[in-house]
Amino acid sequence: MSKLFFRYGAMNSGKSTAMLQVAHNYEERDQSVVLMKSSVDTKGDDQIVSRLGVTRRADLLLSSGQDLRIALQKLLGERDDFQRGVACVLIDEAQFLTPEQVDQALAIAVLDDIPVVAFGIRTDFRTRAFPGSQRLMEVAHSLQEMKTICRCGKKAIFNARLGAKGIIREGEQVMIDDEHVRYEALCARCYLEAEQSGS
Amino acid sequence: MSKLFFRYGAMNSGKSTAMLQVAHNYEERDQSVVLMKSSVDTKGDDQIVSRLGVTRRADLLLSSGQDLRIALQKLLGERDDFQRGVACVLIDEAQFLTPEQVDQALAIAVLDDIPVVAFGIRTDFRTRAFPGSQRLMEVAHSLQEMKTICRCGKKAIFNARLGAKGIIREGEQVMIDDEHVRYEALCARCYLEAEQSGS
Amino acid sequence: MSKLFFRYGAMNSGKSTAMLQVAHNYEERDQSVVLMKSSVDTKGDDQIVSRLGVTRRADLLLSSGQDLRIALQKLLGERDDFQRGVACVLIDEAQFLTPEQVDQALAIAVLDDIPVVAFGIRTDFRTRAFPGSQRLMEVAHSLQEMKTICRCGKKAIFNARLGAKGIIREGEQVMIDDEHVRYEALCARCYLEAEQSGS
Amino acid sequence: MSKLFFRYGAMNSGKSTAMLQVAHNYEERDQSVVLMKSSVDTKGDDQIVSRLGVTRRADLLLSSGQDLRIALQKLLGERDDFQRGVACVLIDEAQFLTPEQVDQALAIAVLDDIPVVAFGIRTDFRTRAFPGSQRLMEVAHSLQEMKTICRCGKKAIFNARLGAKGIIREGEQVMIDDEHVRYEALCARCYLEAEQSGS
Repeated sequence: MSKLFFRYGAMNSGKSTAMLQVAHNYEERDQSVVLMKSSVDTKGDDQIVSRLGVTRRADLLLSSGQDLRIALQKLLGERDDFQRGVACVLIDEAQFLTPEQVDQALAIAVLDDIPVVAFGIRTDFRTRAFPGSQRLMEVAHSLQEMKTICRCGKKAIFNARLGAKGIIREGEQVMIDDEHVRYEALCARCYLEAEQSGS
Repeated sequence: MSKLFFRYGAMNSGKSTAMLQVAHNYEERDQSVVLMKSSVDTKGDDQIVSRLGVTRRADLLLSSGQDLRIALQKLLGERDDFQRGVACVLIDEAQFLTPEQVDQALAIAVLDDIPVVAFGIRTDFRTRAFPGSQRLMEVAHSLQEMKTICRCGKKAIFNARLGAKGIIREGEQVMIDDEHVRYEALCARCYLEAEQSGS
Repeated sequence: MSKLFFRYGAMNSGKSTAMLQVAHNYEERDQSVVLMKSSVDTKGDDQIVSRLGVTRRADLLLSSGQDLRIALQKLLGERDDFQRGVACVLIDEAQFLTPEQVDQALAIAVLDDIPVVAFGIRTDFRTRAFPGSQRLMEVAHSLQEMKTICRCGKKAIFNARLGAKGIIREGEQVMIDDEHVRYEALCARCYLEAEQSGS
Repeated sequence: MSKLFFRYGAMNSGKSTAMLQVAHNYEERDQSVVLMKSSVDTKGDDQIVSRLGVTRRADLLLSSGQDLRIALQKLLGERDDFQRGVACVLIDEAQFLTPEQVDQALAIAVLDDIPVVAFGIRTDFRTRAFPGSQRLMEVAHSLQEMKTICRCGKKAIFNARLGAKGIIREGEQVMIDDEHVRYEALCARCYLEAEQSGS
């Protein structure tokens, strides 16, 4: 039985870099990996983008209705480079998976014996779990934190949505940053204080 | 700033033993701890019971409407043995906390600078998080797994509800074990296989 | 392939309690465990003693010349209760193992496929590893910290030897506490400051 | 009090990538970091090289006699970009530090309150700790494993030295790979089996 791993962290904690490094580690040993990415992230292209400057195309861009286990089998059947099987499945932006897709990822690990490593953000701008993150925290064999830092130097664990007048507490769960809205990873104290000072 | 810790595990992973050990470690250094326990667990008494045979009374039995931060302040004011303050707050059966109580626990750690360690079960018999567990997984500074084993020897991560005819998949989230119902910690494979073979 | 785990911590971090809990978790599932203890600890009896008040006799008291793998096989052959095999080997006071015995523990995990969990103190009163701890930190598959606290409330990581005139920096690595010498788990800062202030 | 972290792993586990990511995370928040590297590694240049393709120059190339704490103070005094202080010290190839330098790194964390993250290989080709690794495993506040995989797909924990006739078990601790010698990260089983089958 293989395992389902959830490597979670606040924004900008290096999740995509870590994912590309895992892929590299396997491929260096002549083992194949499949890179998946949720398409819900409306930036929407199929690139895994590390802020360190490394970029790579996902093998599979997942839409929310798609069965992850069937899609994997289909991909393995189609592509010659996966003829010898796949050693690991890696999923970027896993917070956007549906709960059903997380269960399919668990089945890939447990029933198909392929380790799955999902990378994602733990919570939204109101500190509530994304659907994919919540299910991953319920069923993953291992929860591993990716660390980043707050403006104050402490470990950041929350993701604040900020507008012209400070922290924003209402709105859609998914809203891409633009000229009106930006995000900032904060520690619990800076988040709670920003929330209380409001504006 | 202190931290909120969530030490989660399947049933019978030694959570209460670990909690009593943490209390002992502090008290050996002449530092006081407050032991809390949710009263939602309808076994309902105020004892922290370790299966190793050690038992101790909780300082505070929490009802679901109670404000945890206010209740702590009240307790510290009332009891002479807490005059020098409290070094740590420990919470048993933390899966039964309300989300609001988890936020209050976070405030105790972050704003009142008292570390809080919450011990609880991650998910119910359908692999869904309990309300307290879900909120703890969203906001805790550190998620630490307590391990136990499945009947097959692997690490157990799920809690199956079992009746006369095998695994039960419907019913209330909280149902105390009796002559009709019992629980068993299972690994993901044994759980999924039991679920599929059904009855 | 099973794994060799090293659960290390300062003195009084609850190592024996944790070991007895692991034993309990296995036995509750009708799986047998073997409890070993180094006899180098000149307190010398064969009891695993938890400061929480739980005590249990070791199945095997190891002398420093003994081959751990052969001793295990012998024990399994002799005792009826191990006829169905053993699910886990647990070792108390593992800092006192010889490097060779740690290699034998690794072989039990890797070649005989029985998980081994060794519990021990990381370093002596001069912050130098014990022979067993050093080898365990070199070869264990997993290093897991057991936490306890310093007099100042921070995490203790060192073990100071204290005499009538304060911290002691010279002497034998193993010296049992008596009326002249006692030990105290300290954080790095308290240890360094005690060392600088001298006697 | 800040902490000393040791992030250890077998060869090619992504240590330099992770180090450059940590640097990036701080600098993105306008906080300065100092990158150090041991010069003992006779490849000897001052570049931090990630196998993912990212490269960056170390601020300080450490020789084995150098006092790390004094060298840091000197650097902070000399360079304008460190006028506002430094938020974190990062050390590459930390296995080559002397034990004294590790103690100096601990003092930087504990007494100067600057977190230090040391990245390094745990053990040499005979599974013995390097001097820097050994001291780091004795005194670091936190030991964090960086994972990579063996040729068999399991987690690699050892580093085998391989020559024309297979695994090599004798020789200097540090020997750069060339046409006669190469290294391979192996799991414990593959390492032990290679060792037993000999050349």
